[in-house]
Amino acid sequence: MIPQIIIGKKPLLRYVTACLTTFNSGSNRVVLRARGRRISSCVDVVNMLRKGFLVDITIERISIGTEKISIDNKEKNISYIEIVLRR
Amino acid sequence: MIPQIIIGKKPLLRYVTACLTTFNSGSNRVVLRARGRRISSCVDVVNMLRKGFLVDITIERISIGTEKISIDNKEKNISYIEIVLRR
Repeated sequence: MIPQIIIGKKPLLRYVTACLTTFNSGSNRVVLRARGRRISSCVDVVNMLRKGFLVDITIERISIGTEKISIDNKEKNISYIEIVLRR
Repeated sequence: MIPQIIIGKKPLLRYVTACLTTFNSGSNRVVLRARGRRISSCVDVVNMLRKGFLVDITIERISIGTEKISIDNKEKNISYIEIVLRR
């Protein structure tokens, strides 16, 4: 099972740090996942990692799709992105 | 050269329509491109196309990266996404 980091509303650097910590604890892969408006932040985190912190990471897979969420008992479709990074 | 559609701030349905028009005019590929906060909209457009309009499209490639833009003579890094769709 690949460690997963879900991008939320914290400062981007928190997620960058979480990735670094995961890689440094011995994992050679990390999944970054974001939904809705956080999708852009997810791409930002990957780019920050690649530009400034871990030059030797590669993007193994990027997938996008929709999932259903329920807000106030109403079902809504929301887009997501999943980026698998490999060290 | 693959036709390119750049996602901006218009209603999402405009971009969905632009993709459909491009496919219907004979192209078997379309590149969708977005920067910054529009990255989420780009994923939304692809999902709308796949869910509601063109079931037979596949995602050929998704790439992300950063590019430099200058705002008020200052250089800034901005994330982008590029999604190649194939009919």
